[in-house]
Amino acid sequence: MSHYQALLSRLSDVASLREAAAVLGYDQQTAMPPGGVQGRARQLALLSRLSHETFTAEETGRLLEAAAAEVGTEGDEDAPRMVRVAREDYAQATKLPTEYVAAFAQATSLGYQTWVRARQAKDFAMFAPTLKRLVELARQGADYLGYDEHPYDALLGQYERGMTTRQVAAIFEAHRPALVELISAIQAAPQVDDSPLRQHFPIEAQKRFATEVVQAMGFDFQRGAQAVAVHPFCTSFGVNDVRITTRFDENFLSPALFGMIHEAGHGMYEQGSAQELDGTLLAGGTSLGVHESQSRLWENMIGRSESFWRWAYPKLQAAFPDQLEDVSLDAFYQAINKVQPSFIRVEADEATYNLHIILRFELEQALLTGDLTVDDLPQAWNDKFSAYFGMTPPDDALGVLQDVHWSSGLMGYFPTYALGNLLAAQYLAQARRAMPSLMDDVAQGQFGGLLGWLRENIHRHGRKFTSAELTQRICGEGINPAPYVAYLQTKYCAIYGL
Amino acid sequence: MSHYQALLSRLSDVASLREAAAVLGYDQQTAMPPGGVQGRARQLALLSRLSHETFTAEETGRLLEAAAAEVGTEGDEDAPRMVRVAREDYAQATKLPTEYVAAFAQATSLGYQTWVRARQAKDFAMFAPTLKRLVELARQGADYLGYDEHPYDALLGQYERGMTTRQVAAIFEAHRPALVELISAIQAAPQVDDSPLRQHFPIEAQKRFATEVVQAMGFDFQRGAQAVAVHPFCTSFGVNDVRITTRFDENFLSPALFGMIHEAGHGMYEQGSAQELDGTLLAGGTSLGVHESQSRLWENMIGRSESFWRWAYPKLQAAFPDQLEDVSLDAFYQAINKVQPSFIRVEADEATYNLHIILRFELEQALLTGDLTVDDLPQAWNDKFSAYFGMTPPDDALGVLQDVHWSSGLMGYFPTYALGNLLAAQYLAQARRAMPSLMDDVAQGQFGGLLGWLRENIHRHGRKFTSAELTQRICGEGINPAPYVAYLQTKYCAIYGL
Repeated sequence: MSHYQALLSRLSDVASLREAAAVLGYDQQTAMPPGGVQGRARQLALLSRLSHETFTAEETGRLLEAAAAEVGTEGDEDAPRMVRVAREDYAQATKLPTEYVAAFAQATSLGYQTWVRARQAKDFAMFAPTLKRLVELARQGADYLGYDEHPYDALLGQYERGMTTRQVAAIFEAHRPALVELISAIQAAPQVDDSPLRQHFPIEAQKRFATEVVQAMGFDFQRGAQAVAVHPFCTSFGVNDVRITTRFDENFLSPALFGMIHEAGHGMYEQGSAQELDGTLLAGGTSLGVHESQSRLWENMIGRSESFWRWAYPKLQAAFPDQLEDVSLDAFYQAINKVQPSFIRVEADEATYNLHIILRFELEQALLTGDLTVDDLPQAWNDKFSAYFGMTPPDDALGVLQDVHWSSGLMGYFPTYALGNLLAAQYLAQARRAMPSLMDDVAQGQFGGLLGWLRENIHRHGRKFTSAELTQRICGEGINPAPYVAYLQTKYCAIYGL
Repeated sequence: MSHYQALLSRLSDVASLREAAAVLGYDQQTAMPPGGVQGRARQLALLSRLSHETFTAEETGRLLEAAAAEVGTEGDEDAPRMVRVAREDYAQATKLPTEYVAAFAQATSLGYQTWVRARQAKDFAMFAPTLKRLVELARQGADYLGYDEHPYDALLGQYERGMTTRQVAAIFEAHRPALVELISAIQAAPQVDDSPLRQHFPIEAQKRFATEVVQAMGFDFQRGAQAVAVHPFCTSFGVNDVRITTRFDENFLSPALFGMIHEAGHGMYEQGSAQELDGTLLAGGTSLGVHESQSRLWENMIGRSESFWRWAYPKLQAAFPDQLEDVSLDAFYQAINKVQPSFIRVEADEATYNLHIILRFELEQALLTGDLTVDDLPQAWNDKFSAYFGMTPPDDALGVLQDVHWSSGLMGYFPTYALGNLLAAQYLAQARRAMPSLMDDVAQGQFGGLLGWLRENIHRHGRKFTSAELTQRICGEGINPAPYVAYLQTKYCAIYGL
């Protein structure tokens, strides 16, 4: 066996342990009874320890260097890319001392419980001591991981390899004014009516329709499945077993329908890695931003497009004649694209969404550097929210306490959501350039061209290229907010008659 | 940390790995898409290797001896029992060389695939070469494991600690004539009508009713859940997370209803281990025979009793008025207890069931000693079947090829099913002696007394006592077929008017 094959065999064990943990996580959220909590924590802690130990063992380092000498680290072939990415992952993983990892795990486990109670009580003060500890740990983590300019770079780099705070700030600053301007123009225009979506839609029929839609788009149910979960997500246990989950609301059509398309967007990315990458560190999405670009592209740019509904709306009307017979395609299209600033990020429309992220990005940096204290955070949140959205959260549950991320130790994660929106617009613009009939095909229910293009240019590569490399290959430039702003302006000027 | 605590910690890792594998197995049979097969095999192979390596490592042996010196191995307290059972498991697990385990895994993986095809083709010759190899491996396995009298002892002992072939043969011989006599008397009597069960019963309503029943019996849905599977089973990931699965037939009431009660019987046993045993080697059922006693007791001796249906039948009629309004309780009770010799074991009624097992037990021994060759097996099967049941299988799919067990390397396993029937009758007789009103309580829908008795006398002990020790404690004797024979005679003489 060559050194490279020995490395692959070792990394396959790491992948198998991570996939097994993912199965346990999926079961926990889709099937596990309440009694399972403690046992599941014990099982997951062990799998996590074993995969970490196996990956960070000195033997892995030795194999990595031997494999690097054998197959090289340059070029775009699988082997050198595998070694490069594994080396980067190994360097990251071995930077954090075991005691730090244990302290972090303990703090986030406690943090999550505390956050749940504090949000329930709408009382930030309950959460403040825990958050202070988590910010301190985030600072320490940044120090361990290392950075050139800003400690935030280290955190961000965990989710977007190689991306810097400075880059993100520039990208955000370059489109924030346009967003604010668009939103305020929309607010001055007559509002659209989304009441057609807020009728009674039986859950089984919702499920049938949404399943038909994502299947038509290309989510492969031979290599994937769907289940119900309170907090929808997508997870994968390999290239050929990808699970999406959905939440149903029988009095509101949007959550399940667009939620399932969103998760199927993630799912098609996971299913699209080249088969040769299955069970290796190169399978799956290259960054959270690129992952989100796939879910957003399908959910919003296709799933909320007029072209798509020219094909899908007669089918939806047939599935829900009582509810939609008298609702025109135009009225329905307006309803699903209603823009309205709201306090909660996860309920935000695509025009206001990035503003929610920019706010968090700015606050996270200030917390990390100490320019903002945890005690001053709620006020800072409300001030900034008021400046961006023109309204002030009435309580902390609708403000600073709304997201789970900080309680779980996820700082530097939020920007990836906004980058996903921007990348989606850039990729779709390229796809349309390559296939001028793309949106006409969508209007015929033909999604194979788009999915094929995404597979060829993005999915099949898995983690071989970073987000930046991938975007450069596809668009000939880095992340650029202009296509997203142009997309929003064109779409919403038409809808709101601006 | 004491040596004993260090041992517990190590065994907890082994338990966690086995539980994680069980979650993956459960997902595989209840949710996994076809594409997941290869990845799942890779993940399960790793978890199985890791749990085997962790358990059989020399360090485990060292800790076992140190812990034995510390807490002793005598007495019925948890600690000495834990050490005793772990030592026995360790001795068993370390007897099989790694190369043998690998060869066995490969042969059974291939064996299963070949069996599926052979059964489909009704062609034993396709399966014969694989079965020869598996019999040879079973012989080798018996030699590695060691035995005093008969190589079959070693195989049987994997499922029933300490039980010998001679004991089982004596138990079977002691009740086979009574079974043959009863069945032939029943065949001479007018047959009962089971057509009320073979109507259209919508699946959702079947599910609701069966769920209500097992919940009333005491299956705890806070610490358990139910799913659909093609081949129903029960599995557990700890004392507080037990899963049962069911198969639904919309044109036949019995499979889902009695199947769910059967699996819930297994499930209540798993849920009943003392909480202190959770995550240790002592949690769960002590033997397959005792496990089957619990499923059979609830399914047949309670679930197919007249007392039970005095309580449950009005509810069933209310759930299915169109189907059962005109069917009397008496007619229904007869229908669910129809006795009819059939070719397939898994469809057998409780009167004929043990004969199917005795046949397999005799053939397995002969195969193992070489008194019977694999090539002569189909003829031997048919001859014996004809002698016991008075009819001959028309093809091998309805005969020698019907069961999955041999193809999966499970020899010595079948007897535990029959022992379960015998033990169920012995235990229920003791419970009725302790609680004379037991069947009256059942007729009121009160199952707490019975479940409490089973918990106290059987469930809470987990694997602390062997099947033989447990039965001795409860009944003051070993396995005795008389109560089962008496139970069958009383019940079926009434039903068939013998």
